[in-house]
Amino acid sequence: MKIAAIVSKPAKPELASIVPDALRWLAAHGYRVYIDRQTASYTDHDLVVSRMEIASHQPSFVLVLGGDGTLLSAARAIGKAQIPLLAVNLGSLGFLTEVRLDELYSTLEAVEEGRCPVESRSLLDCRLHRDSHEIAHYTALNDAVIKSTVARLIGFKLCINGEHVVEYQADGVIVATPTGSTAYSLAAGGPVLMPSVDALVLTPICPHSLTHRPLVVGDDALISVRLDSGADGVLSVDGQVGMPVAQGDEIVCCKADYSVKLLRTHKPFFDVLRSKLKWGQR
Amino acid sequence: MKIAAIVSKPAKPELASIVPDALRWLAAHGYRVYIDRQTASYTDHDLVVSRMEIASHQPSFVLVLGGDGTLLSAARAIGKAQIPLLAVNLGSLGFLTEVRLDELYSTLEAVEEGRCPVESRSLLDCRLHRDSHEIAHYTALNDAVIKSTVARLIGFKLCINGEHVVEYQADGVIVATPTGSTAYSLAAGGPVLMPSVDALVLTPICPHSLTHRPLVVGDDALISVRLDSGADGVLSVDGQVGMPVAQGDEIVCCKADYSVKLLRTHKPFFDVLRSKLKWGQR
Amino acid sequence: MKIAAIVSKPAKPELASIVPDALRWLAAHGYRVYIDRQTASYTDHDLVVSRMEIASHQPSFVLVLGGDGTLLSAARAIGKAQIPLLAVNLGSLGFLTEVRLDELYSTLEAVEEGRCPVESRSLLDCRLHRDSHEIAHYTALNDAVIKSTVARLIGFKLCINGEHVVEYQADGVIVATPTGSTAYSLAAGGPVLMPSVDALVLTPICPHSLTHRPLVVGDDALISVRLDSGADGVLSVDGQVGMPVAQGDEIVCCKADYSVKLLRTHKPFFDVLRSKLKWGQR
Amino acid sequence: MKIAAIVSKPAKPELASIVPDALRWLAAHGYRVYIDRQTASYTDHDLVVSRMEIASHQPSFVLVLGGDGTLLSAARAIGKAQIPLLAVNLGSLGFLTEVRLDELYSTLEAVEEGRCPVESRSLLDCRLHRDSHEIAHYTALNDAVIKSTVARLIGFKLCINGEHVVEYQADGVIVATPTGSTAYSLAAGGPVLMPSVDALVLTPICPHSLTHRPLVVGDDALISVRLDSGADGVLSVDGQVGMPVAQGDEIVCCKADYSVKLLRTHKPFFDVLRSKLKWGQR
Repeated sequence: MKIAAIVSKPAKPELASIVPDALRWLAAHGYRVYIDRQTASYTDHDLVVSRMEIASHQPSFVLVLGGDGTLLSAARAIGKAQIPLLAVNLGSLGFLTEVRLDELYSTLEAVEEGRCPVESRSLLDCRLHRDSHEIAHYTALNDAVIKSTVARLIGFKLCINGEHVVEYQADGVIVATPTGSTAYSLAAGGPVLMPSVDALVLTPICPHSLTHRPLVVGDDALISVRLDSGADGVLSVDGQVGMPVAQGDEIVCCKADYSVKLLRTHKPFFDVLRSKLKWGQR
Repeated sequence: MKIAAIVSKPAKPELASIVPDALRWLAAHGYRVYIDRQTASYTDHDLVVSRMEIASHQPSFVLVLGGDGTLLSAARAIGKAQIPLLAVNLGSLGFLTEVRLDELYSTLEAVEEGRCPVESRSLLDCRLHRDSHEIAHYTALNDAVIKSTVARLIGFKLCINGEHVVEYQADGVIVATPTGSTAYSLAAGGPVLMPSVDALVLTPICPHSLTHRPLVVGDDALISVRLDSGADGVLSVDGQVGMPVAQGDEIVCCKADYSVKLLRTHKPFFDVLRSKLKWGQR
Repeated sequence: MKIAAIVSKPAKPELASIVPDALRWLAAHGYRVYIDRQTASYTDHDLVVSRMEIASHQPSFVLVLGGDGTLLSAARAIGKAQIPLLAVNLGSLGFLTEVRLDELYSTLEAVEEGRCPVESRSLLDCRLHRDSHEIAHYTALNDAVIKSTVARLIGFKLCINGEHVVEYQADGVIVATPTGSTAYSLAAGGPVLMPSVDALVLTPICPHSLTHRPLVVGDDALISVRLDSGADGVLSVDGQVGMPVAQGDEIVCCKADYSVKLLRTHKPFFDVLRSKLKWGQR
Repeated sequence: MKIAAIVSKPAKPELASIVPDALRWLAAHGYRVYIDRQTASYTDHDLVVSRMEIASHQPSFVLVLGGDGTLLSAARAIGKAQIPLLAVNLGSLGFLTEVRLDELYSTLEAVEEGRCPVESRSLLDCRLHRDSHEIAHYTALNDAVIKSTVARLIGFKLCINGEHVVEYQADGVIVATPTGSTAYSLAAGGPVLMPSVDALVLTPICPHSLTHRPLVVGDDALISVRLDSGADGVLSVDGQVGMPVAQGDEIVCCKADYSVKLLRTHKPFFDVLRSKLKWGQR
């Protein structure tokens, strides 16, 4: 018997009709479907398990109904088991959830017929250290950003693999995955990284010196940013307001030890780039 | 009889010796010297007047002991009378107050001998409008900056002389004088403007589109920036934390109707640029 | 009696019908029309004069049928007399000749009714000096560009008003008018200058140092670029291949002492910017 | 018995004393030393072989006396055998040959004592195709550059792994290795890539559109640049004037199937960056 699973975003009224429809489609195509407790709020389907248990039922894929946030949450719970996710975007702009709701069933058919390749997107592991203690730990899809909270410079010391790289006086610094290279890093002047590059990019934000450039490092690099002068800052992960960062705090970033496996539709990366960023238009 | 004046920064203990010395030097060279009340706190010299009255005594120059802030304050009080200022930098990095304390007397001699040319630096007039009322009014030496207060984009609508220019989705926007072009605007990617150019520069901060560039406008332009979407912001003037800016608020900038007249020493602009910014170094 | 004139681009077969049509329209609207010898090749109209003589007949405007090249040529011959030009673009992309052929008669009507404002665009005067002799003299609408002829760096020494600015090691350098700021200078990373700014912009091309930025100078500046090391170069004016430049040669640029007076249609500068450069599009 | 080899740059008179000295040092430290025919011109040492034969004698390292050009030539002849090279820079600025002549013997001692780590630097394989034939084949240490030969734009079509990426209208395009990211690509606005990143960077030169950015691709990418409009061009490899490129020609680049193994001294990459590029200086 074929097995699938569904995880969902909370509090989306439209899921009260989408979830039962999707369950019917999957049943009609011979799938036994497990759902998480969140999804159970939209249906009376009874194979309800916790997100952490889903992987143990070995679904061939997990349908993720939500946005990038739901996808990341699913990736945390299921990602290490390397089960592919089919992420359907409900509403907001999604970088990774490129399947629109009106493409749901045509995409499910493509998955059925083996026409959707699986693509990995790497994640960023980000830890905040204070007085030799780890006081916060995040996983980022796009980027970790350390910025000044006020209209003043902050001073950073950047190390890579324990080697001193440079000291910044800047508004902040961005550590981005290839996926995140087309988000905030691009706005700050960074290059575009193809999703498949084994690299991360460090982009300073408004550096107060002419002698800085974005820096591309291998994704085996251990990146350390220590706040060592100027104003206090804040650490944001994927654009969500995060932790205050104080003088002497150190943010340590590296590639996460799991990645997101995504079932992809037909749109090549550069098509997305050309349509979203007007890349190359005159 | 020759006439001079002194204005000073508050609460600088070293002025308790500098001010009397400077008064002695000026008396010995035949000057009648007026001082403001702040300067009177450092000496028992008795020709004390308010800053606003100084101009009426028609000094041939005003010695400004402090930093850029003291200079701007002096410019506001005395500037319209077009009396040249000799600004001596006490301590912090000064863009306009390039005379160091150890150059004070050699520079005074140069002024005496007519070897110091007078240079004008234009200022920026910046007003914050809310619901058709002007709720704040600033004068800036370097720049007016409108930025998001949180890690979110703000949306602006930019008009010049009433003509629609562009809508930004960005972290913020900088309106800078030529003097300010080497400050924050440069960090955000702006060009260098020679101090004598009759222009202002608008530099977006991390614009979320590839199709933006800094924009140089004539200094007769009326620049309007209206916050029309996204997060709330804050208006900073010359890097000092300023006013909260709400949706619908409009910041209107133009060249101020007075400029700073500065007695300049021998250092040409490009020498300063090469030494401060390492301009052109390989 | 109202007076007009026509100058034309050579060897454009379509002018054989456009010129007689335009002459009929102008006659019907009460104009006596002088044409240059080039225009006479497209019609048997008999008020033929040299381009240099046109101004002496005091036309209220001159219709220029061609592209930017024809416009510049007309500006040289007629420009100093301050007679407004109505430039109609035949074919290629014109920065200044924004009136399309299909807008010719509606624009002529607007001119008749006084609805077309006159706008000045400044020009660049560019002279090549070798061994203290001026060996070439050009007028540029957009820019003067000094570039290496081979895949090697050239070294320049830049002076402004006789003051040393900086030494470049670069592929080249661009001196652009505000009009030219949206042409090659923009491609090399320069800012946009509004047409009305009294300024010129110097933009290095691929400078081999991190410490360069475009430099905006007042249009009263005397700009000198001396080739002093590296490869030989070539001086191009408005993108046309120009003079070889040898070691020790000096290119001296300043604002030309005449400008182009243009009859403008209704399109504001920023509309053109948004449509041609996709300025501000997301 | 320990074995070493020496290859040398032609026509460097100083090698007439350096080569015999180095041979004495190596003999004194117990090495049997093979030299190539070029090196034989500086000494009467008799273990002379062709460069291609050196690898078959299994030296533990090869001393390369010259510059980056000699190093690349040695890498071609010996590189595939993975024998480490110790490159000593004679004269010109060397990106890879960072050992100076006055450090030769201290570095040889460090090699003896196993204190010099071996570092790989990837190379770029670059082929020029015309009418379905490969008409030229180069290996680049830094970059392959396709540029217009005249002051006109060229149009390119860029494909990666057979997928259409973008069309450029530009002065040219640079395909650079991580090593080359600090050379011409940096001048054209590209990011810095750490030498160990498994990536290549494509940097447009003065693109005539605002919507371009440098693009970082994995070093398993097959990059194709086809000249499809505008002026003719020229292909340069590592800054040396190369082949004319005509309309329809295709330049195909990928990582070379061998890399350079270098014996490195103690200087970390970022130290070199800070000292050569003034990276991070205020």
